[in-house]
Amino acid sequence: MTPPQRTAGATLDEVAERAGVSRATASRVLSGDPRVSDRAREAVRTAASALSYVPRQAARSLATRRSDALAFVVAESGDKFFADPFFAGVLRGAQVAAAERRRQLLFVVVANDDDRTRLEEYAAGGHVDGAMFLSVHGNDPLPGRVHRLGVPVVLAGRPANPRVGIPYVTADNVTGGRLAAQALLARGSLRPATVCGPCDMTASLDRLAGFRAELAENGIDLPSTAVTEGDFTISGGHRAMERLLESGERPDAVFAANDLMAVGALRALRARRIRVPDDVAVVGFDDVPLAADADPPLTTVRQPLEVMGRHMARMLMDLADGGQTTSATLAVELVTRTSA
Amino acid sequence: MTPPQRTAGATLDEVAERAGVSRATASRVLSGDPRVSDRAREAVRTAASALSYVPRQAARSLATRRSDALAFVVAESGDKFFADPFFAGVLRGAQVAAAERRRQLLFVVVANDDDRTRLEEYAAGGHVDGAMFLSVHGNDPLPGRVHRLGVPVVLAGRPANPRVGIPYVTADNVTGGRLAAQALLARGSLRPATVCGPCDMTASLDRLAGFRAELAENGIDLPSTAVTEGDFTISGGHRAMERLLESGERPDAVFAANDLMAVGALRALRARRIRVPDDVAVVGFDDVPLAADADPPLTTVRQPLEVMGRHMARMLMDLADGGQTTSATLAVELVTRTSA
Repeated sequence: MTPPQRTAGATLDEVAERAGVSRATASRVLSGDPRVSDRAREAVRTAASALSYVPRQAARSLATRRSDALAFVVAESGDKFFADPFFAGVLRGAQVAAAERRRQLLFVVVANDDDRTRLEEYAAGGHVDGAMFLSVHGNDPLPGRVHRLGVPVVLAGRPANPRVGIPYVTADNVTGGRLAAQALLARGSLRPATVCGPCDMTASLDRLAGFRAELAENGIDLPSTAVTEGDFTISGGHRAMERLLESGERPDAVFAANDLMAVGALRALRARRIRVPDDVAVVGFDDVPLAADADPPLTTVRQPLEVMGRHMARMLMDLADGGQTTSATLAVELVTRTSA
Repeated sequence: MTPPQRTAGATLDEVAERAGVSRATASRVLSGDPRVSDRAREAVRTAASALSYVPRQAARSLATRRSDALAFVVAESGDKFFADPFFAGVLRGAQVAAAERRRQLLFVVVANDDDRTRLEEYAAGGHVDGAMFLSVHGNDPLPGRVHRLGVPVVLAGRPANPRVGIPYVTADNVTGGRLAAQALLARGSLRPATVCGPCDMTASLDRLAGFRAELAENGIDLPSTAVTEGDFTISGGHRAMERLLESGERPDAVFAANDLMAVGALRALRARRIRVPDDVAVVGFDDVPLAADADPPLTTVRQPLEVMGRHMARMLMDLADGGQTTSATLAVELVTRTSA
């Protein structure tokens, strides 16, 4: 089986004639302009389909450098992309915003250097109007490279190196860490601990900094044995909680820097018959759907995932359309359930 | 903040000179040809990066109609895309195969007609070399439309209308349904029932047909009260199981047409303190990771998800490179655990 050959296809005039509308109306329908009656839109689409009309988008894209597509790039393995509902939340918001302005959203997983090179070449080829990057670790050069191609870039999270000059959207992670500490302090915790995120991500560092600062201001020092690094997965949180339980004095409260790790911590505690929140209180971060379903339901710091996705997509489209944009830090809030 | 302006950039000759290699070698490196030493590759990439060399991919794409990208299109809501590990499995295989031949994989969620139009326009614009479609329902016109643009298309699952002439990769769903029936019959089931998938998908119909045929050949008729439709989600499986329990005689065994629905069925049974497999045996379909983690671990029909993804991507690239391809039906097998 081979696909049919590309043909020159019908012209816009032929589509307009068959649809019984003016050439201008046909053009408006085919370019996605909303100022057209439903009836005309239906007629033009039917005619275009019957005549196998192919818009000369490739040519237009070269001329105007517009592809009408945005890349949603996750710098993690595909498995992690699917396992963490964080991405689904942000993606949902980005999808809505892109659809509002008739842009195609393309999700890309970048797990290694070959993937990076491919994405860079694809962006260089003019196939996307912009790219938003999620879960960027350390000094990943990819966002900067795409930015230097002249392709608009927006980051989720504060970049490690602010000199790059790429705009970003982030949750207020420092305040989030403070809210988590406040929740544990309010329960009377004297020996809090934390499972922080990967140390090569600013979100992890900012949450830890806020947590530590709030404790210090309340006279509690966080010793190094009470800080252990996780990888933002359930199993990573499970293992990190076990390390905390095995090293020195048992903590009476734990802040896990995302909900997946908090769920892993709950499992580790349950396996040892340690009661939550009575023996050890647990606070997570994100408020993904699984937080409310956890056993016990998870107290967590909510970041507005859909708003974040919507905001990133809009910033990117503003840049792509020649406008300006500004980085934004979005507010977080504590959601109190049972675990703390 | 605005991105830097696109510039004409360095030429290939300048990159080659700076890297200290021939123009031909530089060209090979930049086109992804593997027949280059690691040292030369490194030197050329470093030079290209230092000079901000931008391959003239957009121009090349217009001339050769190659974008070096493949679309992985899921015709479901974004939430379903993330909630069903089936997609992650197929995606993993497609990602590996695309990387082998240096193609960029782009995931696209198509949830409504606007999404369909956008994807069609993007494909018409020459931005992808081909598109594979997953979870196609009924007479969704999108795969046929993209195919008629001359863009190679491969389907996951047997198309409802074989006249379209689009190649596909499918699991042997009829045999899968038979294997599920055999597993339940082997336990001595006399009143089997099934939660089938959406009736507008051939995978659902084929699994049901195989299940029914195997039972019939063993003298067991499947009454209409023993067949209820689910939507391939956990909550849908839960509700469907409740319907089966409330309508007439209680079944002694249930075949759920995917693992998510089987997990939902297990939950519904547990909520009523009905023992699995003693009172009701349960068989699923897919063998996603969650099947082994279910309580009790799920007996299921395994379809080779990664192989399926790999196969689809390779078929698509063969077509994109001007070759031929043939539809394939992949074998399935029963994985026996505890639930049946």
